[in-house]
Amino acid sequence: MNILEIIAKKRDKKELTKEEIEYFVSNYTNGKITDYQAAALIMAIYINGMTDSETFYLTYSMANSGEVLDLSDISENVVDKHSTGGVGDKVSIVLLPIIAAMGIPVAKMSGRGLGFTGGTADKLEAIPGYTTSATIQEFKRNVKTVGISMITQTMNIAPADKKIYSLRDTISCVDSMPLIASSIMSKKIASGAKKLVLEVTYGKGAFMKTIEKAKILANEMTKLGNSAGVEVKCVFTKMDEPLGYAVGNTLEIIESIEFLKGRMKEDLKEEILKIGSNMIYLAGMGDNLEENRQRMIQTINSGKAFEKFKEMVQNQGGDVSYLENTNKFKKAKYIKDIYSKKDGKIIEQNAEKIGTLACFLGAGREKKEDVIDMSVGITLEKKVGQRVRLNEKIATIYANSEQKLDYAIKKLEEIIFIKNIEKN
Amino acid sequence: MNILEIIAKKRDKKELTKEEIEYFVSNYTNGKITDYQAAALIMAIYINGMTDSETFYLTYSMANSGEVLDLSDISENVVDKHSTGGVGDKVSIVLLPIIAAMGIPVAKMSGRGLGFTGGTADKLEAIPGYTTSATIQEFKRNVKTVGISMITQTMNIAPADKKIYSLRDTISCVDSMPLIASSIMSKKIASGAKKLVLEVTYGKGAFMKTIEKAKILANEMTKLGNSAGVEVKCVFTKMDEPLGYAVGNTLEIIESIEFLKGRMKEDLKEEILKIGSNMIYLAGMGDNLEENRQRMIQTINSGKAFEKFKEMVQNQGGDVSYLENTNKFKKAKYIKDIYSKKDGKIIEQNAEKIGTLACFLGAGREKKEDVIDMSVGITLEKKVGQRVRLNEKIATIYANSEQKLDYAIKKLEEIIFIKNIEKN
Repeated sequence: MNILEIIAKKRDKKELTKEEIEYFVSNYTNGKITDYQAAALIMAIYINGMTDSETFYLTYSMANSGEVLDLSDISENVVDKHSTGGVGDKVSIVLLPIIAAMGIPVAKMSGRGLGFTGGTADKLEAIPGYTTSATIQEFKRNVKTVGISMITQTMNIAPADKKIYSLRDTISCVDSMPLIASSIMSKKIASGAKKLVLEVTYGKGAFMKTIEKAKILANEMTKLGNSAGVEVKCVFTKMDEPLGYAVGNTLEIIESIEFLKGRMKEDLKEEILKIGSNMIYLAGMGDNLEENRQRMIQTINSGKAFEKFKEMVQNQGGDVSYLENTNKFKKAKYIKDIYSKKDGKIIEQNAEKIGTLACFLGAGREKKEDVIDMSVGITLEKKVGQRVRLNEKIATIYANSEQKLDYAIKKLEEIIFIKNIEKN
Repeated sequence: MNILEIIAKKRDKKELTKEEIEYFVSNYTNGKITDYQAAALIMAIYINGMTDSETFYLTYSMANSGEVLDLSDISENVVDKHSTGGVGDKVSIVLLPIIAAMGIPVAKMSGRGLGFTGGTADKLEAIPGYTTSATIQEFKRNVKTVGISMITQTMNIAPADKKIYSLRDTISCVDSMPLIASSIMSKKIASGAKKLVLEVTYGKGAFMKTIEKAKILANEMTKLGNSAGVEVKCVFTKMDEPLGYAVGNTLEIIESIEFLKGRMKEDLKEEILKIGSNMIYLAGMGDNLEENRQRMIQTINSGKAFEKFKEMVQNQGGDVSYLENTNKFKKAKYIKDIYSKKDGKIIEQNAEKIGTLACFLGAGREKKEDVIDMSVGITLEKKVGQRVRLNEKIATIYANSEQKLDYAIKKLEEIIFIKNIEKN
C-alpha cells in the first residue's frame, strides 16, 4: 500500500478500503505523508465524495488517532451535546448546569474559539480564577463529586482531525458534507460520548445555508454515530443573527448568569429547552419532551441551576462573588451606545459579520497565538423583525482602543440593517 | 484575487480566467502559494479538466515564468524536435547532425535523465571532454559557426513547469492530458522554437498507452503551439520495446556513431527518417517527405552527417578520436552475454522494465543527485517478433558490480519473454 495508489484510486472515483483509509490517517498524523499529498487526496474526496463506509472508516480512524476517553466508570447516562456553531453561543454554559442540577452527570470538554465564533472554554475563563485545564483524573473526580465539570481539551483528542481540519481550511475544502460530519463525530467518539444531542445550525451564520443541507448533515452524523455505538438525537436551529444579545466573553458570561438567575431571553430559552429536553430524554430521565421542558424551567426558577453553576465554578477555582455581583467584572475602557438613525424595522444583524467585528475588537483569535481580551464585545438590543424608533438604542460597543471603537461604530451601523416602514 | 477563491472555482468546475491562472503560476513559482494549495488545485484540474483557453493560459504563463530564448537572430528556419519519451532513445544524437549537415541550423537544448528514461545531455557527456553547459552567447555562436550545438538546459527555462511537474509526480497527477500538453509546450515555447516536430510515443513504454490517446495529446499540443505562434507537425511511434538495441550512455553513443557511419538499424532508421523528413519540410527545405528521406540517407552515406557530428563534438571540447575508434570507450568491468534457454519467438521486451534495470545498473538516476555510470547498460540482439534458437545470444549486460550483475542476469531473463513455437 502506498499513498500514490490511494490518491489515484479516489481521484478515479473508486471506493477506498478500511486499510487504505487507516493507512492515510495514521501516516498523515505521524508526518510520513506530506501536506501536499494529503491536500490532493482531500480535494479528490471533496469532488468525488465518499461512500457511507468510507466516511465511517475515516471518522473511526481519526477518533482513534489519539487518546480515547472512557467515561463509563462515571455513569452510563453521560450525555454530550454538540452544536455546529453560532455567534454569541452560550448554550453549553447555561444549559449544562441545569442538566447537572437535574441529576444527570455532565462531563464536557469544549474547544477554544478561532475566527468569528467564540469558544466555550474561553468564555468560562472570563470568570476570574476559573481553570479549564485538568488531568483526566481530576476531570472525572470533579464530575463524581459535583456532578459537572467543564474543561477544555487537554488530552490529545483526534489529532488527525486537527491536522486535516487545518489543512482543509487552507485549500478551500471546508464545506464538504462527509468531511464536516467525520470531523465532528471523530472528536465526539474520542471524547467518550455514548449519547449525544447534536444541534445542527443553518442560515447566514452557519456552514449549512439551508435546512435541507442541515438535514443531510444531521442524517450523515447520526449514521456515523450509530455505527460507532453512539445514540444521537438531532435538533435544528436557524442561525442568521447572534444567539441572545451579547457577543464577547465577559458579556456572554454575564448574559448566562442573568439567564440562570431567571431572566431568560426568548431565543436563547427556546434553544436551551430544545436541546436540554432531548438530553434528558437520552439520559433516560423522561420520555415526554414537553414535560422535560417544564422541569428545566422549574430547575431554573427554583435557583437550583444557578446553585449548580456556582458549585462548578467554585470547584474549578473560580471566584463566585463575580457570579453574585456581575458588576465586579472588569469593564472595557470605551463603552459606546449606538442609536437608530431612523424609524423602521430590523431586517438583518448578520451573525458572521457581528462575530468578525467582535473578534476584531479583541474578543476572538484571528491566529491561534492571539490573546483574548475578555472585556470587549458587542451587545444588541433588538432581534430581527422588531420595530425600532429614531434615536432608540440598538446596540453597545465595548472596546479597549479608541481606533478600534471608531471603526466598530461605523461598521456596526452598516451591519444592523434597518428598513424604513411605510406609513399607512 | 486569492488562491482560496481560485481553488474553489476549479473545484466547482468553473473556468479560470487568464488573470487567475497567471496569479497561480507566478505566486507558486515565487513560493507565496504553498505546495499543498498547488496540490489541491492540480487535483481539481486533473478531475474537472481544463478548457482549451485555460490550457493555453497555463502553458503561456509557465513558458513566461523564467527566461525565454529568442533564436530569431540565428535563422528563421531553426526547427526543434521533441519526443514524449522512450527507452534507448538516441534519436536526437543521430538525427540532428544529419539535419545540420543538410544546412538547417540546429540549436538543441536537451534534458537529463530521471527514472527509467535516459537523457540526451547525459549520453553526450559519455564522450570524453564533451561539455553540455554553455552560456546563451556561446550556444548561439556555436550554431552560427558549426551549424549545430547540443547543450543541456543551463538557462532558467519554465521554472513554474519544473515545480508543477515535480509536484504532480508526488500526488498521482501525472497522466492528465492538459497537464502533460502544457508542460511540454511551455518548455518548447520558452526554448524559442517557432517550428517543431513532435514525436508522440504510445504503448507499454510510454505515458499514452494507445494510439487514440496519443492522437488526442498530439491534437492538444498542436493547438497550444499554434496559439503561441509555433508551427507543429506530429508523428506517432509505438514504444513497447527499447529503440534500437543499446540502453546505457556509452552503449547508446556507440550505437549512434555506428548509425552515422552507415550501419543503420531498421527501427531507429525508420524513426529518424520519419521525424527528420518532417523537420526538413518545416524548415522549408523540401515539400516531398519521401524525397527528404532519400536525401537524409544520402547525407549519411556520403559521410557528411558523421563529419558534422565530429565537428560539433570537437567544437564542444569532445575527444573525436573516440568517435573514430569506439574501442577507446572505457568498458564496464563485467560483461556478460545472455543466451536463450529455448527455441521460440520473442514476445515481449518491455521498454520500461529494461530502462529500469539499466538505471539499477547505474545508467540512470533514481534521485536527482545520483551520479551516472557511463559504461553500464544492456544491449539486445533481437526485436520483438523475431525467432530465437536454443543457446542463441539474446542480450549482453554491462555492469561494474558483481552483485548488480547477478541480479540483472536473473531479471533480464524474465524481462525478455520467449514463447515456445509449436512444431508443425
